[in-house]
Amino acid sequence: MKDYLKKDEWKIIEEGFNPNYNRISESIFSLGNGRFGQRANFEETYSGDTLQGHYLAGIYYPDKTRVGWWKNGYPEYFAKVLNAPNWTGIKIDIDGEELDLANCEVNDFVRILDMKNGVLERTCTAKMKSGRIVKIHAKRFCSIANDNIACIRYAIKAVNFSDPIQLTPFLDGDVINEDTNYDEKFWEPIHEEATENEAYLITETKKTEFQVCTGMRVQVVKNGDIIDIDGKSFTKDKYAEVAINTSIKDEEEMVIYKYVSNITSENHPKSNLLTVCKNEVEKATTTGFEQLLTDHQNAWAKKWEESDIIIKGDVAAQQGIRFNIFQLNQTYTGEDERLNIGPKGFTGEKYGGSTYWDTEAYCIPFYLSTADQRVARNLLVYRFKHLQKAIENATKLGFKNGAALYPMVTMNGEECHNEWEITFEEIHRNGAIAYAIFDYIRYTNDEAYLTEYGMELLVGIARFWAQRVHFSKPKNKYVIHGVTGPNEYENNVNNNWYTNFIAVWCLKYAMYAIDYVKSQNATQFQSIADRIKFYEVTETNQWKDIVDKMYFPVDQELQIFLQQENFLDKEIIPVKDLPAEDRPIHQKWSWDRILRSCYIKQADVLQGLYFFEDAFDIDTIKRNFRFYEPLTVHESSLSPCVHAILAAKIGDYEKAYEMYLRTARLDLDDYNNDTEDGCHITSMAGTWMAVVKGFGGMRVADDQLSFTPHLPSQWKGYSFKIRFRNRLLKISIDTSGTHIQKLEGVDLKIKVNTKEVQLVGEDPILC
Amino acid sequence: MKDYLKKDEWKIIEEGFNPNYNRISESIFSLGNGRFGQRANFEETYSGDTLQGHYLAGIYYPDKTRVGWWKNGYPEYFAKVLNAPNWTGIKIDIDGEELDLANCEVNDFVRILDMKNGVLERTCTAKMKSGRIVKIHAKRFCSIANDNIACIRYAIKAVNFSDPIQLTPFLDGDVINEDTNYDEKFWEPIHEEATENEAYLITETKKTEFQVCTGMRVQVVKNGDIIDIDGKSFTKDKYAEVAINTSIKDEEEMVIYKYVSNITSENHPKSNLLTVCKNEVEKATTTGFEQLLTDHQNAWAKKWEESDIIIKGDVAAQQGIRFNIFQLNQTYTGEDERLNIGPKGFTGEKYGGSTYWDTEAYCIPFYLSTADQRVARNLLVYRFKHLQKAIENATKLGFKNGAALYPMVTMNGEECHNEWEITFEEIHRNGAIAYAIFDYIRYTNDEAYLTEYGMELLVGIARFWAQRVHFSKPKNKYVIHGVTGPNEYENNVNNNWYTNFIAVWCLKYAMYAIDYVKSQNATQFQSIADRIKFYEVTETNQWKDIVDKMYFPVDQELQIFLQQENFLDKEIIPVKDLPAEDRPIHQKWSWDRILRSCYIKQADVLQGLYFFEDAFDIDTIKRNFRFYEPLTVHESSLSPCVHAILAAKIGDYEKAYEMYLRTARLDLDDYNNDTEDGCHITSMAGTWMAVVKGFGGMRVADDQLSFTPHLPSQWKGYSFKIRFRNRLLKISIDTSGTHIQKLEGVDLKIKVNTKEVQLVGEDPILC
Repeated sequence: MKDYLKKDEWKIIEEGFNPNYNRISESIFSLGNGRFGQRANFEETYSGDTLQGHYLAGIYYPDKTRVGWWKNGYPEYFAKVLNAPNWTGIKIDIDGEELDLANCEVNDFVRILDMKNGVLERTCTAKMKSGRIVKIHAKRFCSIANDNIACIRYAIKAVNFSDPIQLTPFLDGDVINEDTNYDEKFWEPIHEEATENEAYLITETKKTEFQVCTGMRVQVVKNGDIIDIDGKSFTKDKYAEVAINTSIKDEEEMVIYKYVSNITSENHPKSNLLTVCKNEVEKATTTGFEQLLTDHQNAWAKKWEESDIIIKGDVAAQQGIRFNIFQLNQTYTGEDERLNIGPKGFTGEKYGGSTYWDTEAYCIPFYLSTADQRVARNLLVYRFKHLQKAIENATKLGFKNGAALYPMVTMNGEECHNEWEITFEEIHRNGAIAYAIFDYIRYTNDEAYLTEYGMELLVGIARFWAQRVHFSKPKNKYVIHGVTGPNEYENNVNNNWYTNFIAVWCLKYAMYAIDYVKSQNATQFQSIADRIKFYEVTETNQWKDIVDKMYFPVDQELQIFLQQENFLDKEIIPVKDLPAEDRPIHQKWSWDRILRSCYIKQADVLQGLYFFEDAFDIDTIKRNFRFYEPLTVHESSLSPCVHAILAAKIGDYEKAYEMYLRTARLDLDDYNNDTEDGCHITSMAGTWMAVVKGFGGMRVADDQLSFTPHLPSQWKGYSFKIRFRNRLLKISIDTSGTHIQKLEGVDLKIKVNTKEVQLVGEDPILC
Repeated sequence: MKDYLKKDEWKIIEEGFNPNYNRISESIFSLGNGRFGQRANFEETYSGDTLQGHYLAGIYYPDKTRVGWWKNGYPEYFAKVLNAPNWTGIKIDIDGEELDLANCEVNDFVRILDMKNGVLERTCTAKMKSGRIVKIHAKRFCSIANDNIACIRYAIKAVNFSDPIQLTPFLDGDVINEDTNYDEKFWEPIHEEATENEAYLITETKKTEFQVCTGMRVQVVKNGDIIDIDGKSFTKDKYAEVAINTSIKDEEEMVIYKYVSNITSENHPKSNLLTVCKNEVEKATTTGFEQLLTDHQNAWAKKWEESDIIIKGDVAAQQGIRFNIFQLNQTYTGEDERLNIGPKGFTGEKYGGSTYWDTEAYCIPFYLSTADQRVARNLLVYRFKHLQKAIENATKLGFKNGAALYPMVTMNGEECHNEWEITFEEIHRNGAIAYAIFDYIRYTNDEAYLTEYGMELLVGIARFWAQRVHFSKPKNKYVIHGVTGPNEYENNVNNNWYTNFIAVWCLKYAMYAIDYVKSQNATQFQSIADRIKFYEVTETNQWKDIVDKMYFPVDQELQIFLQQENFLDKEIIPVKDLPAEDRPIHQKWSWDRILRSCYIKQADVLQGLYFFEDAFDIDTIKRNFRFYEPLTVHESSLSPCVHAILAAKIGDYEKAYEMYLRTARLDLDDYNNDTEDGCHITSMAGTWMAVVKGFGGMRVADDQLSFTPHLPSQWKGYSFKIRFRNRLLKISIDTSGTHIQKLEGVDLKIKVNTKEVQLVGEDPILC
């Protein structure tokens, strides 16, 4: 837990330079535009502790897996988010003395992330070893108006000297992933070129052979005029620079503009990369920094217009929620169905892979409500496109006949995680992928999705479950052995209630999808069935039998669902009675002790109650919540939001607020002591859910949107907007009540608390 | 399964050179003398597929652990048996052409391991690329009469040429472990020297800083005369050689003798290594090859005199059992209490570490019966000396108050294995370590061991179990959660019957030991109790409560013990119904599928029935054997012997013989397709047990030795000797009955079948 950032409604502000916090700030102040992004590394050389990180969406490397003891079925490679060529660097050399904040006395340091405008700004005064004092003012953005482009404006002012100065903007592809398994470099040089004011670099990843062209043009402005820079170009493998030799006078400010473009072979033929990149750089330079910035800010204004949440009377909460929304919008724009939401976005490289079940369970609701429904649909199509790989994955594990097991972590559809208890056993992820289709259709009413993509995927998943269960003679029921539930603090358990429940639900939903597609388009149904060799009667009869005879562990006395069979055999001691020095248990306890304990890393039974709320009465939810909440340590960033939503549901608003706080400022306050590795991007969607679904009580049930709003006593009011079936609604809750305003779209009947409300005009309605 | 070795009662014979089998033969034909050993690598250069391996007892390297996902409590280092300096090499160069069987036409190749004499011999004719034909006759041994010494006699004969020849015996410390985790070399150079006929090398291991001095002196004999060799010495880091330039005439044979000594800092001060090594080499050379060989053979004759098993009418079985006894005697001599029995002995480097629970569960009975009781006692003391490390290990995992958890794999008492399901959960190993004390005392009657060492260790272990159990409210019993039993095809299970049983047994035996020591020497008891802060009443009261209220999973209907809770929930399909292509399942199935299946890697419940046979009636043993045997895949080399013993116990002799066959020739026939990595040394003791405890039915119960002999129908007869309480007995079983002969020691009353037999004189008694 740290508290070194200033609270502000729209900005993240760091005042004063603390090298110990540099990695944390590099994560928090990251920029991205859905296509690429980078950590808030300094432009000039920094020899202190730093994690240099530039990332390109979809560009990964299958690093050879590191494993102590090999298990059959492990993937050979672990796909890693690649640290990509550095395009931010500008070396500053004053008469032979390099500017490096690690070797300066740094004063008046201010770093600001302007979330409203998507701009990173940094100012400081640095006294160099020689006694020279410079003022730096750096400003940069990754354009979301044109996602090929980024710009840097770097101003340097001499305070007490007049000297020759060399400014060397560069591009450097000779980078390394800090988490490389075998200390290998992943990039090969393809091409370098540089002139007196521009430079281009083409590099290629080993194995995957992605190419990226990184280009820059530079301008230097002195006393308001663009000067003739006549830079000295230099290139070597994977590196290009333009060294600009000039001089700076006391009290003079010099500004260097770096217009950058990143173009990858994901979007352009390799043969065109250089041309496209040159065009983009040319265009950007012509347009100029200020205009590009204006376009960028306008695009951000539009994003905020739709996705902002306003909280009144609590700056910390306001800043927290905006930071989360800002990062989500930086990470994924939904325009490319090949992309997904990496757990660290563009803020770090930890965890590898880009896609976890986080996307389906946590992120889709955010994008469903705050963006065009095409965005969430693209996330579904992403999984559909990986269906064959999921079938291959299941086949590798011994499943047959088109059964599909989606990977736990993936970049291209292949599994790239290798702990047996996760890779092979945390199979509930398959359920979340099915659930996301249901969730999407429930929200959008786009049932046609089932015909186009959904049914085929659901059949693959249903086939998996049908083979994964087996019949227990003693129980006279179907059981599911050897799983890891959402609570990863239990491994290889039998009959995890959540997994069994979602397995049955998947079978039912697959049958629903089959009936739907058949009823809508019998020919298409038959064509899919033929292609995937689907024997409807035989297969669905087996599915029905499983649905009818699935075993669910329950405790009759406590009237709760059991997280897994025999859960109550454990010593049940609430988290509050754990000594403080024992927490977090994942850092303090050995793994066996964690496994034997009753402590829950993240919502498990409660995840099921959240997903399938409509299937349970409020007392059931209450009983289970009150049993499991006290045992939950929330050592996953994905946990508190679900608890916040359920706590609000059962009217325990104090707990809901406590849970909300843990999720909203997780990274800003470095709650888990790991922000330096990058931000927890996917859990940020959970924070949004905690507000909208938790306090706002937003639900869609029986084809109707509804709210049961609650105003936390700590707030004066809050408001958010949601998109729903071509409407745009604004919901504002304050002490006077709930105001619902339809900003776009035709009439809509919704429910607020128990009352039906007809939204006709555009005026706010007080409910 | 391979069958390329000739059957012979005393020899292992390979006729014809098959490079594909070279690694397997290198393992099988390994030599060792308890202090050092090496694989059967050729003396001359061999560029084909080979695993070059020289090993020194107790010399290890803590290689940095390789792990995919770190868990708290994992050891940082994985201690590896070190590939040590090569002392066998002799390069042969004939007028510029190097002798290398990989580049020759090889004829009349014969490799013989003479187990009676402990000698490796190889003869062949090699036609070189140039057309030159040479005959090689190499012979070597690692002296067990003087375990500092090894000798090579290498004869080479020119068949069709007369040419200059260079013989270059060398010492090479620049070796690498094939299983190094990060491709590092583990040895540093300290010193090299060489003269015209000798060379010395001192090398030191990184981190552990063991030093070894490897020395050699060479002699060359031509036409029966020692020639003046005037070798050209050459040294570089970690390497020394003596190149002998002479000539060879057609039909002439030239013999090179290499007298080698390996001296380590385990047994001598570092400053003395060179002097001691030089003395040993000098002494050996003076004594001469033939005399050293005679001394060595005499020592082997003595070993065989005590440990041989003779099987009549079945050469394959005879060869198999002798190979096992030979390897066990090569691996561990029991003279150094710091040493233990590595799973691969001196035959390979796989599995790292030297000590597994194999020692206690499988090896101790062999050494108890075939060697002075001091040998088994040393193995017990070895663990006692690691008690503090075991306490540290338990502390690291959250246990308190002197609780001891012995490591799963170790070299120096520290854990060096890191799969959580093994390292943290396969805790039954603690039980085997306690059981070995019981087993030793039962056999030797040396109860004083409890006072000297045993009780303190037993208290540490009992304290572990007392903390590792917890009380289950629903069961109203103590339970043990999250363990891996001996059957490693189940992980993280609750209430493994074997573990629960041995835990309770440990508590009871610790209390017995306490009472014994108190009764024998109250002062000493109090002194130990004070030192280890043992609060007898409080602690033993808790232990008694656990003993009284431990939960044991059973099935009332089948009247069997359940391997773990809910075992019968699995699909129970006997191994015989598995498709052949699915086996071995550890190579064909993914880990989750193995875990979910009912298949048993090695005896688990049955291990308990074997250890604690006296606690169960014969029907209980039968019912459990008949339930679990058909589910056991025996994919551990340690499994069949226990099944063989129990099958014999219940009179199922056909099964007993089948199981015996699987264990006896496991390596010779490369049954598991892994002999190339080295031999399964520890399971070899199991083979001995299968004969002596299985067919011979040897037991010690109620302070009395007994036999219930059975003659397998495939054999004409068999006999073995055992040491028992200062007697030496010979037991011969043939069609005429069982003959018992007391060869040494005072009178003894034993039981054969149900009959008591008084052994008075030295004449055989027919029972």
